[in-house]
Amino acid sequence: MDRSAEFGRWKAQSLSKADLSRKGSVDEDAVEVVELLNSREEFFTTSSCAGRILLLDGSTEGSGVQKQHCCWLLVTHKPCARDDVMAALKGATSEAVLKFEPFILHVQCRTLQDAQTLHSVAIDSGFRNSGITVGKRGKTMLAVRSTHGLEVPLTHKGKLMVTEEYIEFLLTIANQKMEENKRRIGRFYNYLQHALKRETISNSHSKIKERNNPLCTHKNRRSQGKAQGPSTTEDNGRELEDGDGLEISAALFLGDD
Amino acid sequence: MDRSAEFGRWKAQSLSKADLSRKGSVDEDAVEVVELLNSREEFFTTSSCAGRILLLDGSTEGSGVQKQHCCWLLVTHKPCARDDVMAALKGATSEAVLKFEPFILHVQCRTLQDAQTLHSVAIDSGFRNSGITVGKRGKTMLAVRSTHGLEVPLTHKGKLMVTEEYIEFLLTIANQKMEENKRRIGRFYNYLQHALKRETISNSHSKIKERNNPLCTHKNRRSQGKAQGPSTTEDNGRELEDGDGLEISAALFLGDD
Repeated sequence: MDRSAEFGRWKAQSLSKADLSRKGSVDEDAVEVVELLNSREEFFTTSSCAGRILLLDGSTEGSGVQKQHCCWLLVTHKPCARDDVMAALKGATSEAVLKFEPFILHVQCRTLQDAQTLHSVAIDSGFRNSGITVGKRGKTMLAVRSTHGLEVPLTHKGKLMVTEEYIEFLLTIANQKMEENKRRIGRFYNYLQHALKRETISNSHSKIKERNNPLCTHKNRRSQGKAQGPSTTEDNGRELEDGDGLEISAALFLGDD
Repeated sequence: MDRSAEFGRWKAQSLSKADLSRKGSVDEDAVEVVELLNSREEFFTTSSCAGRILLLDGSTEGSGVQKQHCCWLLVTHKPCARDDVMAALKGATSEAVLKFEPFILHVQCRTLQDAQTLHSVAIDSGFRNSGITVGKRGKTMLAVRSTHGLEVPLTHKGKLMVTEEYIEFLLTIANQKMEENKRRIGRFYNYLQHALKRETISNSHSKIKERNNPLCTHKNRRSQGKAQGPSTTEDNGRELEDGDGLEISAALFLGDD
């Protein structure tokens, strides 16, 4: 089976399966992005979370790679109030931690080139920890990830280690991060639309050229497509300690949210 | 210039440049890994941080992709005591945040296949947020990243929002994370050694086979190499919400730290 047909089969299989997440559906703030990607033949999403505030209770002991046993005292994809957290904290028996986890999205891509396009969009939208994975059977995934988190220990052996005033202060910050996270998702959606539009235009241009010149190879078509998206990043050579190491094929996107 | 020669030129250029990090040298706990990678013709490192506890002071306002202006009140790559943090906090004038930032490493790889090998090692060692970047001129980078952080707001407009007792509690956790981070670096080093040894053996095996059968292509050689590292991961189909989306070419590594 050729690569493209195999990808189509994977996509159909994946999208027909039940949503096995705790929530059982795509988060509201991620729906637009997920639907846009799944409407394109070169992508499908395999998991997503729009961003959430989490209160976990569990042991921090142990040193394995695996997550330690823990239970969820509270999860919300909306801004969160002090009273909700104070009520949830009553259930804490060991080490409760408040986390803000930003948008995360996993997208299977038909080709490495498709993953590169999506990776550029992710980085330019502020999701600097995004990266590509190439699997053993050639499956190519992009993980869209942010550096934009929060992880704050609140209880020790069930005892609250901070004041209610601190919880309020902390939630102001967590809620701000949630707002900023939403803006980034919006930016990602806009940049993605522009990038896909540009890809479509350059693909149809090169198909016309190909008809006129049947010797034009697939590789040529790619480089023609690329020429339409001038790069805005420079190669900075050796990175600074704080650099993110991403010298990518960033492209100029028009417009923003 | 062929791909391999071009990579060699990049490597020589990169390694001859001055270290532009604040510290000006590779962190002690990362030296072994960095030296092992740089001793191999298929890799070179472009930046690294072994893991650190940071106290930053700065505004959390603004919503850009860029980091806001902030200053470093304290940085240490060693376990940290309460008095050091309390002293450093005296310099806080706005929003001070204590962070634990785990090991991070950027490695330029000669081929995508080399990046895949290194990616497997990273994931298997517990660095689950690792990912590949393919640049516009074909530069292939692996970023080794962990999920294993901590980010705790401590002051508001310069005023300390928590007790000294909480700072002590927090540093116990940060120091534990630093220890666990060190163990993961050790595991990464061991897994890397095994993976590189296996690559070397399978490459020399296939070179012998190639001499006997000159029609053996580069692609065949790769799949022969792969056959020597049996996979331990299964394709789990649609991921759970919490899954990391990495269906990679994980291989069985012998031994651990």
